[in-house]
Amino acid sequence: MLPLLAPVTVRPRDDRDHADRIALSAATTGGVHMATKDVRSWIDERREANVFHVERIPFAELDQWRFEDVTGNLVHSSGRFFAIEGLHVVEADGPHGDGPYREWRQPVIKQPEVGILGILAKEFGGVLHFLMQAKMEPGNPNLVQLSPTVQATRSNYTKAHGGTNVKLIEYFAPPDPERIIVDVLQAEQGSWFFRKSNRNMIVETVDDVPIWDDFCWLTLGQIAELMHEDETINMNARSVLSCLPYHDEAPGALLSDVQLLSWFTNERSRHDVRARRIPLTDVHGWKQGVEAIEHEDGRYFKVLAVAVKGSNREKISWTQPLLESVGTGVVAFLVREIDGVPHVLVHARADGGFLDTVELAPTVQCTPQNYAHLPAESRPPFLDYVLDAPRSRIRYEAMHSEEGGRFLNVRARYLAIEADDTVEAPPGYAWVTPGQLTALTRHGHYVNVEARTLLACIHAATAQPQREA
Amino acid sequence: MLPLLAPVTVRPRDDRDHADRIALSAATTGGVHMATKDVRSWIDERREANVFHVERIPFAELDQWRFEDVTGNLVHSSGRFFAIEGLHVVEADGPHGDGPYREWRQPVIKQPEVGILGILAKEFGGVLHFLMQAKMEPGNPNLVQLSPTVQATRSNYTKAHGGTNVKLIEYFAPPDPERIIVDVLQAEQGSWFFRKSNRNMIVETVDDVPIWDDFCWLTLGQIAELMHEDETINMNARSVLSCLPYHDEAPGALLSDVQLLSWFTNERSRHDVRARRIPLTDVHGWKQGVEAIEHEDGRYFKVLAVAVKGSNREKISWTQPLLESVGTGVVAFLVREIDGVPHVLVHARADGGFLDTVELAPTVQCTPQNYAHLPAESRPPFLDYVLDAPRSRIRYEAMHSEEGGRFLNVRARYLAIEADDTVEAPPGYAWVTPGQLTALTRHGHYVNVEARTLLACIHAATAQPQREA
Repeated sequence: MLPLLAPVTVRPRDDRDHADRIALSAATTGGVHMATKDVRSWIDERREANVFHVERIPFAELDQWRFEDVTGNLVHSSGRFFAIEGLHVVEADGPHGDGPYREWRQPVIKQPEVGILGILAKEFGGVLHFLMQAKMEPGNPNLVQLSPTVQATRSNYTKAHGGTNVKLIEYFAPPDPERIIVDVLQAEQGSWFFRKSNRNMIVETVDDVPIWDDFCWLTLGQIAELMHEDETINMNARSVLSCLPYHDEAPGALLSDVQLLSWFTNERSRHDVRARRIPLTDVHGWKQGVEAIEHEDGRYFKVLAVAVKGSNREKISWTQPLLESVGTGVVAFLVREIDGVPHVLVHARADGGFLDTVELAPTVQCTPQNYAHLPAESRPPFLDYVLDAPRSRIRYEAMHSEEGGRFLNVRARYLAIEADDTVEAPPGYAWVTPGQLTALTRHGHYVNVEARTLLACIHAATAQPQREA
Repeated sequence: MLPLLAPVTVRPRDDRDHADRIALSAATTGGVHMATKDVRSWIDERREANVFHVERIPFAELDQWRFEDVTGNLVHSSGRFFAIEGLHVVEADGPHGDGPYREWRQPVIKQPEVGILGILAKEFGGVLHFLMQAKMEPGNPNLVQLSPTVQATRSNYTKAHGGTNVKLIEYFAPPDPERIIVDVLQAEQGSWFFRKSNRNMIVETVDDVPIWDDFCWLTLGQIAELMHEDETINMNARSVLSCLPYHDEAPGALLSDVQLLSWFTNERSRHDVRARRIPLTDVHGWKQGVEAIEHEDGRYFKVLAVAVKGSNREKISWTQPLLESVGTGVVAFLVREIDGVPHVLVHARADGGFLDTVELAPTVQCTPQNYAHLPAESRPPFLDYVLDAPRSRIRYEAMHSEEGGRFLNVRARYLAIEADDTVEAPPGYAWVTPGQLTALTRHGHYVNVEARTLLACIHAATAQPQREA
């Protein structure tokens, strides 16, 4: 007997029930799989169960990586993964394209492949849980953090380096169209990567999913609590979680959506950023040593090499380059209630590695050490406001590290600081609501990765106010 | 006495009343300024009032344009406007980045400046009217077409070429935040431009606006009727009008918005387009003559030069390069009602000049002549379906020309063709509603310029079904 064909039917364009179920998960602080208080010890246990060593090595000891002739670019012999090349950036502010401009050269990570960052979701007892992985990345300060269910470069999951299969990748490549909650290409750091995007995904399942020792189902309420802990939720997980389609409960915003998009369009139009890849050998102002490529004045970051020995990753041991920042970053949103509606002060930031001129960044995003030699007036706007904020003004604070597969101990203090009612948005800045940022995360190249982390932190702070110390 | 400061207040994020007023304007076929039937003769009159001559000239007679040493690029002596350079494109389909690929070189227009395409709107008798300009562009087949109120490159309105001021530019640079209806960066042809975007704007005013002879206020109902005429509404106007935030009256769509965005994300991820600017001299397969740069087999397009003499443009006379297509294009949406809701079949098209891999294109977008030498199986999908469609299946048809400031007599037949109920979307294609496309035009790099024209045509066909011949 032939199966009956279901008639083709239209469906509502909005999936409103996603938001309801997200709200329920955010309000649920007890998960079915593990109590939140036990997650820390589980991560510690995973760290101990798999002995990893990460050791700095001279570039000469890199296996399958080499400095290419002529260009001097640091490349993998397969031509895959990523490469360290040079970038030449000229930025001009409009409106005329010949106003004041800045120009510089720097090393940059070139990684054209689009990877997958996927979190699997499933209802237990009617509440959405999210499958987090305790994953080792060589650059993490504490090696193991909670990562998405799957984080895989294309080279990973197509087995370019001969490793094992990526667990659960079948839920994401391709996803079941009936079960997609989030699926968007989001860019990574524009100051370190050249136009890199990853596919940020949340996909639901009703299957029985095997649970390996490295995996744990958590509610959003549990994740919110963990987001208040230092260096626990990794950058990729923060990025994916920031794209969750939360309800906007606020009655409105200072700017309507049309006004916000118009302001953003103007910011994109008035900046003229010309970024050009150049050979690494042409990056003036940086010097290459046996163990590091670094800025002549010791600022910004270093490129270096590590050897990794582990036991439960896709490969047992490998070597690779990493970037190391020279200081700890400060990444902060000023927050202000306008008519009782919380707003954050976004900055339309131009970075050389952005695909399209500017993205919305936190109010402050910098490494203060890079400004130590400059006069006070050259310091980034609001940096001192943030650093000098009394504790009573801090709505959120935690130390997070950036992606441990590319960055070694690159840490920043992520903050949400309550601003005075008198703080107005200067040119290039705008007060927007978290609901507006959330709506923009449905599309790429609006909300930068640091702002996405802070957005996830703000969702966490809303779901789960920090417990008193 | 000090003025009272209005309290800061939040407003609703949505401007729902814009859509209501757009619907009213679309339903209004009689404007206060000019009857629709008189617009044609007014355009003719404007054409005759200003005697223009456009003449093809050898490259050597270009004034202030020259072929640069070494690169051979065709550039303006000011370094502004645009340049003709070379483009090297390698396209691979995923998922592995080493699947079948195509590779070619071609001349390309490089124009990094963001221009403004702005339409001024104003209520007369409670109905929105839009200020259209009868504007001469040297490449228009009939020289004068209806254009936006303002179309200005940055060089134009900052007077780089010493011309007159651009009329009414003050409404758009900057716009009054309280009166913005549309403000978005939209890309132009990815096959001819390298990553060019213009700022598409519609701004309302309550001012008394002086009316010059070249300007006319029209309702959307009137513009809809004119959109059924050949070569009357220029490309820039079509692009801006496509971004109008019409209500979506449909109960839903075949794909929810999340599903549509996920499908699009997958299309972006699976294509790998590496486009690199190269010197024009390195464009193999093309030959440079005294009067034209053309493909060795006479396909695709030519680069040539013209001298323009006019009387009411920003400059009295000038010379410039233009691109001329070798044939007439076919640009068509297949249209199908699903559950009574009209859908169009979009194609995720990869063009070398796109900033970000793929954009949503019409079902068919090609110049059939370029395929004449190829076997039937190499013809674009659905081309013959469109060309063979009986007249009873044609929902919309008109000839439109592309931007007359860059393209000489580049025409295409724009069509909406009713498809059989059995036509399914093959890989790389999806059935989406006009309402979904409209929502995506709020953001750049989703809907390509040809699909935007067709979207404006479909809005026009909905507002104003074609009169019987």
